[in-house]
Amino acid sequence: MIQRSPLAPAAFPDLPPIAGVTTRVARARYKNWDRCDLTFVELSEGTVVAGVTTQSKCPSPEVEWCRDAIPLGSARALVVNAGNANAFTGHRGRAAVEAIAAKAANHLHCLPSDIFISSTGVIGVPLPVDKAEAGLEDAFSAEPCGWEDAANTIGTTDTFAKGAHVSAMIGSTRVELVGIIKGSGMIAPDMATMLGYIFTDAAIDPKLLQQMLSAANRHTFSCITVDSDTSTSDTVLAFATGKAGNAPLTFMDDPGADAFHAALSDLCRQLAHLVVRDGEGASKFIEITVEGAESDASAHRIALSIANSPLVKTAIAGEDANWGRVVMAVGKAGEPADRDKLSIRFGATQVASGGLAVEGYDEAPVAAHLKGQNIQIGVDLGLGDGRATVWTCDLTHGYISINADYRS
Amino acid sequence: MIQRSPLAPAAFPDLPPIAGVTTRVARARYKNWDRCDLTFVELSEGTVVAGVTTQSKCPSPEVEWCRDAIPLGSARALVVNAGNANAFTGHRGRAAVEAIAAKAANHLHCLPSDIFISSTGVIGVPLPVDKAEAGLEDAFSAEPCGWEDAANTIGTTDTFAKGAHVSAMIGSTRVELVGIIKGSGMIAPDMATMLGYIFTDAAIDPKLLQQMLSAANRHTFSCITVDSDTSTSDTVLAFATGKAGNAPLTFMDDPGADAFHAALSDLCRQLAHLVVRDGEGASKFIEITVEGAESDASAHRIALSIANSPLVKTAIAGEDANWGRVVMAVGKAGEPADRDKLSIRFGATQVASGGLAVEGYDEAPVAAHLKGQNIQIGVDLGLGDGRATVWTCDLTHGYISINADYRS
Repeated sequence: MIQRSPLAPAAFPDLPPIAGVTTRVARARYKNWDRCDLTFVELSEGTVVAGVTTQSKCPSPEVEWCRDAIPLGSARALVVNAGNANAFTGHRGRAAVEAIAAKAANHLHCLPSDIFISSTGVIGVPLPVDKAEAGLEDAFSAEPCGWEDAANTIGTTDTFAKGAHVSAMIGSTRVELVGIIKGSGMIAPDMATMLGYIFTDAAIDPKLLQQMLSAANRHTFSCITVDSDTSTSDTVLAFATGKAGNAPLTFMDDPGADAFHAALSDLCRQLAHLVVRDGEGASKFIEITVEGAESDASAHRIALSIANSPLVKTAIAGEDANWGRVVMAVGKAGEPADRDKLSIRFGATQVASGGLAVEGYDEAPVAAHLKGQNIQIGVDLGLGDGRATVWTCDLTHGYISINADYRS
Repeated sequence: MIQRSPLAPAAFPDLPPIAGVTTRVARARYKNWDRCDLTFVELSEGTVVAGVTTQSKCPSPEVEWCRDAIPLGSARALVVNAGNANAFTGHRGRAAVEAIAAKAANHLHCLPSDIFISSTGVIGVPLPVDKAEAGLEDAFSAEPCGWEDAANTIGTTDTFAKGAHVSAMIGSTRVELVGIIKGSGMIAPDMATMLGYIFTDAAIDPKLLQQMLSAANRHTFSCITVDSDTSTSDTVLAFATGKAGNAPLTFMDDPGADAFHAALSDLCRQLAHLVVRDGEGASKFIEITVEGAESDASAHRIALSIANSPLVKTAIAGEDANWGRVVMAVGKAGEPADRDKLSIRFGATQVASGGLAVEGYDEAPVAAHLKGQNIQIGVDLGLGDGRATVWTCDLTHGYISINADYRS
């Protein structure tokens, strides 16, 4: 078993139940292991859904299935298979997804399009339908389980179960939002992917939920990177059962919509950070903020250029305030930048400004900051109002060991 | 001292002298070391020059100096400083470059713009002018040295001296081309950069030399990557002394121009490969060929997406035929791709085709190929005629050790 990430929270949080959501797990044994690897989440009638999926040009059939079903807006169940991504498996992979949807729909007397499916694990091996169907059958009759069991069951090479909770007031009604997530980018030998699931008892129109989730995604899940590798199966789904009894939210300017949107964004950010904190081999959590770019999009690309630079990531691993590598990463981003207007900050200390090192800056607070687990790098391009923040982790021997040495 | 790369050639090659080129080295002691770190190459009157430099938006003042001088077309000397990149040093860095040019021009009774200058090493520390001037003074009176001494003197964290030689017939005249190069991308703690210098006795118009060098660069230096990090100082310069006495080349269709162009491209490719073979921590030399893309440019971007994928690079380090990671890297490139038309080859063995694994392909030749030092990955997108080849190395513990652990 891989050692628990040093950046992991002390314990899995206390997450409340969500009315209309029932989680069960079972052993499909997709790999030669004795652990639960199939998650079946039953959703009460009337549950609506929204989702975002990978931008990969080579998506898994599960991703294609979800893309087709999300616009229909309704959901009755979620099935997550761990240990086999079923990606790049042609018609056989597609058939496996259809078989799972049919079996679950038959069990719940609903449409196959009400069944949402994800798979995570090795690429190129068709998901064995017999194991999936037997696992589903077991899950149907299994005792309901808690959030931590579900969070563990969707995981593959994750080193800790990941979940979070927020709540919001819609009028006088308190609504709860719970999320579980697995993976940390394309970082694991078996191609772990990022799969995130959000459950709320709020009553909300699926189009509005989609609008809010897409907006939240742009500033959370789309702003994390571990190794710059994008998986074939990344999926985040949000399910709303409507059991809270709040005045249903239909438009962005409905009373309480702002509060719900803010809570959803907060939950997405918490979940995204948990993924980075389980980055393969991670020993530091790094927040990179770029300001003064020509546009937010430009700032985002520059921030990702820094976050994905192996030299920046290894410098942080070495607790080295090597800001020259940040200059390099800004320079290579291909975005508008003026070397002589560039300023760089580690923690609260300005180390470079106006195109050269700050004469005799105090290295002590910088060294102290870099010894910590939470690192902040700030870049000001001095060109405009464009702004972006991304999160990543450092690059250590652990990453190489897990991704290159595992065969030896 | 860092261990010599396992991918290094057995020995430095025998390189002939180039008429009109005299190399000298000296100790400027830019770092606290006792080795030659200043290279002074004197070029006979009438020498013409062409060059290509980094695309970085944060270039060093040396790069800016060369960019201004290259269009003037004439050169009398090259000065290379090792141990300090002089990048991101503001007006002080610029003043150091001007002082070096002035001193060398005064020595050779030529224009400062005839002096070409490069510096490589740590970023953010202005090059000490006193050390540069004292080093130059020593170099002026030093005994001429051979190519291997010059190749060693321009190096920083390189593990072996890099040089190559080709010749071409222009009419009945044989012309010689010699190149030396250092670095392997932005891979070293002190920000080593790629600096390459080509010397020929051919008589050629500088505009034609520039045209040929730019074309060769697109298929050689621009097709290598070690860690995706682009330096602030990358520079390749070609100097032609005209001493061979060939009928001067002015246009692409002059007799012998094709032969010279081919020889120049061959030399550039040899030098580019030597850089990859000295990639930090490299244990495998990887050639990635992408065919069937919608355009050559699209094929190039997809090939680089594969070559820069930490998961592909660590898989090769682990001698793992993990073609799923190649699928992932194609999918994330953002270029036109159709999962169900994609084929992947390791060495000569097709492992995936038409969107899924080749049923029961023979794993033995694949395993044998991956155990070797020279790895070939082939991708066919099945969309069009676009084609590209890039070269990279694997990602190992050596890379992390050199870039993160060096402080400890």
